[in-house]
This record gives sequence, structure tokens and C-alpha cells, in this order.
Amino acid sequence: MHLTKPTSTFISLTTIPMNPLNPEEFRKQGHLMIDFLADYYHQIHKYPVRSQVLPGYLQKIIPESAPCSPEPFETILQDVQNKIIPGITHWQSPNFFAYFPSSGSTAGLLGEMLSTGFNIVGFNWMSSPAATELENIVVDWVGQILRLPESFLFSGGGGGVLQGTTCEAIICTLVAARDQKLSQYGMEIIGSLVVYCSDQTHSALKKAAKIVGVNPKNIRSIKTSKASDFQLLPGPLNHAISTDLRDGLIPLYLCLTIGTTSSTAVDPVGLLSEVAKNYEIWVHVDAAYAGSACICPEFQHFLDGVENVNSFSLNAHKWFLTTLDCCCLWVKDPTALTKALSTNPEYLKNHATESNRVIDYKDWQLMLSRRFRALKLWFVLRSYGVDNLRNFIRGHVEMAKNLERLVVMDKRFEVVVPRLFSLVCFRVSPSAVGQKSGEDVNEINRKLLESMNGSGRVYMSHAVLEGVFMIRFAVGATLTNMRHVSVAWKVVQEHADALLR
Amino acid sequence: MHLTKPTSTFISLTTIPMNPLNPEEFRKQGHLMIDFLADYYHQIHKYPVRSQVLPGYLQKIIPESAPCSPEPFETILQDVQNKIIPGITHWQSPNFFAYFPSSGSTAGLLGEMLSTGFNIVGFNWMSSPAATELENIVVDWVGQILRLPESFLFSGGGGGVLQGTTCEAIICTLVAARDQKLSQYGMEIIGSLVVYCSDQTHSALKKAAKIVGVNPKNIRSIKTSKASDFQLLPGPLNHAISTDLRDGLIPLYLCLTIGTTSSTAVDPVGLLSEVAKNYEIWVHVDAAYAGSACICPEFQHFLDGVENVNSFSLNAHKWFLTTLDCCCLWVKDPTALTKALSTNPEYLKNHATESNRVIDYKDWQLMLSRRFRALKLWFVLRSYGVDNLRNFIRGHVEMAKNLERLVVMDKRFEVVVPRLFSLVCFRVSPSAVGQKSGEDVNEINRKLLESMNGSGRVYMSHAVLEGVFMIRFAVGATLTNMRHVSVAWKVVQEHADALLR
Repeated sequence: MHLTKPTSTFISLTTIPMNPLNPEEFRKQGHLMIDFLADYYHQIHKYPVRSQVLPGYLQKIIPESAPCSPEPFETILQDVQNKIIPGITHWQSPNFFAYFPSSGSTAGLLGEMLSTGFNIVGFNWMSSPAATELENIVVDWVGQILRLPESFLFSGGGGGVLQGTTCEAIICTLVAARDQKLSQYGMEIIGSLVVYCSDQTHSALKKAAKIVGVNPKNIRSIKTSKASDFQLLPGPLNHAISTDLRDGLIPLYLCLTIGTTSSTAVDPVGLLSEVAKNYEIWVHVDAAYAGSACICPEFQHFLDGVENVNSFSLNAHKWFLTTLDCCCLWVKDPTALTKALSTNPEYLKNHATESNRVIDYKDWQLMLSRRFRALKLWFVLRSYGVDNLRNFIRGHVEMAKNLERLVVMDKRFEVVVPRLFSLVCFRVSPSAVGQKSGEDVNEINRKLLESMNGSGRVYMSHAVLEGVFMIRFAVGATLTNMRHVSVAWKVVQEHADALLR
Repeated sequence: MHLTKPTSTFISLTTIPMNPLNPEEFRKQGHLMIDFLADYYHQIHKYPVRSQVLPGYLQKIIPESAPCSPEPFETILQDVQNKIIPGITHWQSPNFFAYFPSSGSTAGLLGEMLSTGFNIVGFNWMSSPAATELENIVVDWVGQILRLPESFLFSGGGGGVLQGTTCEAIICTLVAARDQKLSQYGMEIIGSLVVYCSDQTHSALKKAAKIVGVNPKNIRSIKTSKASDFQLLPGPLNHAISTDLRDGLIPLYLCLTIGTTSSTAVDPVGLLSEVAKNYEIWVHVDAAYAGSACICPEFQHFLDGVENVNSFSLNAHKWFLTTLDCCCLWVKDPTALTKALSTNPEYLKNHATESNRVIDYKDWQLMLSRRFRALKLWFVLRSYGVDNLRNFIRGHVEMAKNLERLVVMDKRFEVVVPRLFSLVCFRVSPSAVGQKSGEDVNEINRKLLESMNGSGRVYMSHAVLEGVFMIRFAVGATLTNMRHVSVAWKVVQEHADALLR
């Protein structure tokens, strides 16, 4: 028996000099922080959207080591203003049109703040029952709004989980699918497993496939083309699968996308899942961005066929007013996930788990620890209501439609791919620059984009499709209204004027 | 060319009925939320520490579907008070002694709040330079405080990254190690890779190994024993590795722990990394909980030998006043990570990345999107200062020492394993219950724990070591002081009185 020898007196506890969670200090500083953020939102349109700092700027103005003694909260906030904000790219700016939006909202922010305040670690039901149960409820709520088939809801034998990002959702479902095949065929066939996607699928899929041990040679990135709007088509998929089967390989997983990153293309879920069904392939639908639009009846048809897939995910932090990070993942067969991802260490054993009457979300995700993400989604749904959320999405789509009209009206520009949601992909057209070579036209558009972003007045990003460099204008920042879109278009025109002069 | 046909007039934008990021509404509701949380901290000791609800409690009191129309913020907050708080296990309660702490603080909370407010998506340098650069700086700061070898710091050619949890850190380093071996020996040897740990290693390791495609049969969970304080010893490790080599297997990865979950055992990093060095094994040190203590000179010797390992991680959200989630991971060879985890999609290409003068953290982690976690760690370090942080840790250790004395003074109890940090593992001793069988003694301790936790006055958890069920009393909640520890011990004694009467 190893025991520390007791001494006769207690050790004095004079070494605790502070209470780092003093409620009144929290209240005082918390109010300062709220005011700081409210002022930030008031000012945000004045900052350069894309940060204009150079690499290494911060090291020059921050001490080389942590302070030994405390610094006042006000000093730190001042440093945030003077040193951090210049290095921030303002994703909440109304003039942010790059990538896809990271749509914050008061409700999302305050829900997140509450989750941070509780600071619970909800790995299983027992560790904080409300965290698990509210998550069960809100993922069913969102599933209902999307009119996902009952089979994806807890009420129908499936279920959902809030993960951080789509990357996690894909790794989890890939592992679930992989372990089904490995238990069927044996561990040694891991090198024969094949994953299918299109050349438009998010890079997360390839990375996830590598992470879970799929041979990079067995990732089929099937070519799409402008002729079919960059959709993955059943023919080429079927051909790829047949070829692999002929070669003795084992089809594992197919990732479809509703709203690809480059151009928001939508893979035909119904047709493709029909193909996959013949081969016992796990089909995942990544609707990270455009899934949110599918809460509107007019977009719901993009989900046709989803009843045939295994899993479906959507990032509520992209276009659903919920702050980063919040990826909703639904699966039809939760046991496929839990078989692959369960752990049962002694120190977490408890009656509730053993009763099988609760869900332990640690077995639905990669990580053990998890934050109480359901709060922010619950706050968003209740604070705005489904009707407003639909109209909010529609507002962005209408702004994008208007932008598209502006593009078309200026003969120097062209819309490169059809707009489906709130992303407009455009470029200076070859005819405007005297039919130069493709690479020359690309170079002009590259310069145009860099010149606009360098001005700090707007931030847009780019993609290249079939060799064509195009500027991506993604409407979706929460503060954006049509006035910002109109001004942004004027910025485009002014910079084009200078460049094409 | 697919173009949406322009119509002559713009679509009206009357469908945007709200501004979900109105600064003044944010200010008003934000202040309410701060007051709500400050009041929560004032009241927190009055709530049952472990939630006392039954499975399914929430479904009965929450509507079956999301509301169509907005609900007032005040109504939602009232529901948090009446419906959510009863289902929360109060990790911030001063009477929370279960698992390991989730130590919040004003600075950590407000840093997180600021990060939520900016709501940037810092996948690469360009997407928000400050997020990357501040992270570079603070991980070096923490590395310096720990006196990690220069080789783990950016200033010395290594570097650190803030991940969500240790689980992620382990998956990332495992993939890095795996891909080194696969590129050396070929993809087909994946089934021959072997991972080493002890039977005390966190379950995250086994789960991670399975996720990255290591054959579960090739996870060596080497037995430890009470005789050697549940440390992994070099002899058994060497034996396991030699056996595997003889069997044609390929040693891949060794996970050592500083502060195991069951009893805070510390593996001898120096001796074990010497063994691993002979076999080109990637050595990771998981110091999730006890790493924080190593900022104090008196605990720093536990890191001896860390200069020989490949990677080291610590959860700042456990015992470093930084809210969940915040795992610091340092590696000596960042290119091992980036080779395994890099993606380079066209839509993220930018000059800064191409200049090789910046870090793109997306290539150091599983996920693409990432929050601005460095802010909260920076706030904590500056708001409290290194001296106070050390003293704060020491305060918890002293409380645990005092508790240990209380245990020893009551002859009915025994300390089961030596206390090293702020966790005391104790039980009702066999002698106190008439030398019953081991299982009977376990049952009494199980009942004691359940009876205490059921009272709501304290929350502790348990572990089983060599068949001995012990109660884990982890000091570390931010609000805990010696008075709470003394009262908690009285709760133990009262419940033991009732049980042993």
C-alpha cells in the first residue's frame, strides 16, 4: 500500500490568490465584452473585409512570452482592438462574399455563450442529460423541417447528432461503412475498398478516406462536365463501380453533394442512390451549404431520393444562423455508427447507459468530450421561427438573382455556371478582352479578384472549372442586404474599368 | 452556356423581415445573458451537482416540432432555467469532483465569447491571419512555461496547434506516423502495424487506432500493476515489441500518459522513449489532465525524457482555466502532420500559402473549418499570469493533500493508490466491513458512491483497478475551495455512516 504519510496539520491554502470565476467580476467584464462585440457589429462594415496584414505581423507586436502577472481586462480588450482586429478577415461583414458564409446571429451567439457558460462535457447522457436530450429533439426538429424521411429521425428508428464539421461527419460515416465491410470480408481487405465521389466533391472526402485507411489509389474522383452542370451522373458512376468489381475491388462509400463548393452543383441523389443500391455501397449526402435552403418547399425537390441513402449532413453554421461549429448528421442506422465508434471504459460506466434507455453521443462521433451544441440551434429555431428562417434564405437567393441580372446587364461579364442558390459564379468574358487565350482571360479575372480583395471593400473568392477561372460571389452573410450587393457590384465594375482600360 | 434569363425588373426583397444580427438587439439580449450566467454562478452550489432527471424527461416538456413564429428571448431564457438546468450536471459547481475537471474561468469564457462573436472560419492563414498567428504565439508561450524542449516550439523548428480534444490529437499523430510507415513499406502493410499502450491508457487511443485502420488485434494494451503504481514499464514494452517483430509485425506508435484517467499514474517517459527509439516508433505523450501541473517547477520532472518523443498534448480545458474545447498538441516534425493531412483544393489557393511563409492549420488537423481557439488561451494567460496559474494548480493539489489526510484519519477508509496531483482515489476498506470478499467490498463502495451522487450534494466518479472499485475525488473545479472539500468529506462520512450502520 502506497500512502503519502499524513502530517499533523493541514497544509495552509494561502496559495490561492484569486477566484477566476467570481460571478461579479464575470458580470462586469461580461458586460464590457457584450458592448465590445455590439460596437464591433456597428463598425464592421468600415473594416477591410479581407485582412490586409502581411505574414508575421503579429509576432512583431506581441511579447515573446506569457506574462508572469495579471493584466487588466481593459488592456487585453484594447489589444484585441489594436492588434487582433487588423488581422481578422471579417466573416460577419455585410461585404463578405467569399467561400460560403459563416452566418452568425444573435440567437446563435447567445446560445453558444450559454453553452460556454455551462461548460459541461457531454460525452454521455449521464454527464449532462439535457445536452443529449435537447440534441435528440433539435435534430429531429431540423429533420422535420427538411422533410427528411422518418427513417432518419429518432421517432422513426434513425437519428441525428451534432458534430463540429462535415469533415467529422464524413470520417464517422466512412468508418461505420468500412467496419461493416471489414466484419463481412475480414480486416485484410481494407486495401480493396473503394470510395466514390465526383471531381466536384469537397476535399474533405479524400482526406477522410485517407485518414480511415482507404488506399488513395482507390478514391474514384469521377469527372463531371459543364454540359451536365457539374453533376455526377449515373452512367460514369456505374462504369467506375463495374470496373472496380471486375478488378476484384470492393465498393464501399459514395459521397454525393447538394451544393458543391465550386459552383453549388447538385448531384441527382435519386438516380445515383439507385445505382449504389445494387452494390451495397454506403451513400452519404453532403449538403453542407445548400441543405439549409432545402427547408424551403421550393428547394425541397433537391432532396428527392434521400430516402435511399444512409446518411445526410448539413452545416448549420454555414447558412442557418448558427455559429461555427455545428454540423447536423442524420443516419438511418445508428448502430452502424455505434458499432464502429463505441468505447466502454470502466470509469464511464453508469446505470443509465446500462439500461439502454439513453443515447451516449460519444459513440456517434470521433471525440469523447463534446460541447452542448444543441443550445445554439435551439435558440436559433425558437428565436426566429421556421417561417422567418425560410424567408431569410429566400432573401439571400433573391439578392443573388438580382446580382445575376446585374452581371448579365454588363456585357463585359458573363455568368459561368447557372445559379441555383445564393452563389453567383461570374467572370470577365473572353469577348470583353478581345478573345484572348483561356489562360490570359483567367489571368485578367485573377487580377480583378485580387485587386478588389486588396481594396478591402469586398471579399470574394474563386474556383476553376474546366480550366475557367471564375469569381465566386456568395451571398449569405447575416448583415448583407441588397444595398451591399449593389455596391459590391459597383466595386467589381470599377476595378474592371481600371483593369480593362 | 446555361444562364438564368434576366427579367426586366429586380425581384423585390420584401421577404427579409428581420436582422438576426442587429447590434442593439444583440447588446440588449447579450446583457441579459451575462446576467443570467452571473446569477447562475451565484446559485450554482444550490443545484444538485449531478442532474437527478430520468431518461426522457425533456421530451415530455418540449414541443414536438420547431415553432413557425419567433418566441421572445425572455421566454427561451425562462425555459433554460426551468427545463434545461434541471437536466444539467453542473461541471462548474464547487462540489463537482467527478471525472477530471472542466475548468472554466471568466477569462476563458470571455475569450471564447469573443471568438464566437468574430465567428471566423480560420482554415488557413488567409482566412483570418490573426487566428493562425495568435495560435502560433500562444502555443509557444505554453510550451515555454512547460519548459518543453525548443524542438517542440516554432522557434525551434517544431510547433503546436490547438485541437478540440486529445482524441483528435491522437488521431492526427497516428495518421502522421502511419503514413510515414506506409510510404516506407507500402500501403499493403497496414494490417501489420502495431500500436502500444498500457491498460491504463485512455480509451481514445484504441478508438483512434481503429479509426485509422489499425487492426484491433494489433493494439497492445500492456498490463500494469499496483506494485509499480500502474506505470507502463520498459521491460514489458520491450518484450511486446520484440514478440511483434519476431512475428513479422511493424511497431508503429506508442502512447504514454502523464496522469492516467483512473489514478493519474505517470508513465516513465524517459525510460520508455529510450525503448521506442530502437524501433523507430512514434511516441506520443498524452498529458491531458496532469500536463497543466507541469507548469509548476515541482512537477516538471514528470516531463523528463520528453525531448525523445514525437508529440505531446495537454487539454487546457481540463485544468488550465480554458473552456472546452482546447487541446494543445506539439510536434517536433510538423511536416509529418502536414504530409498526412494536407489538402490543396483550388478554391482555397492563395498567395500567402504559395509563399510558404505562413501556416495553414487545416493541414495540422482532421477538420477544415476551425474556430479561433487561441483567443481564450491568450485571455487566460494574460488575465491571470503564469505565477497565479501555478498557484492555482498548487491550491488544488493542496486541497487534495488535505483530503487525503482526512481519508487516512478515518479508519474506515483507505487511499487506494498514491496521490500525485489533485485526484484522491479512496474506498471503504475491507477491514471496515469485516473483511468481506472483494466483490462485496466493491458493492459497498459502489452503493456509497451512488448514494452520495444521488443526494445531489457532491458528484464523484469511480474507477476499477486490479478488481478494486475505488471512488475518484478529483479536485479542480474553479470554484472549489477547502471548505467545499471538507463538506464533501463530511458527505462521504455521513453516507458511509448510514451504509455501514
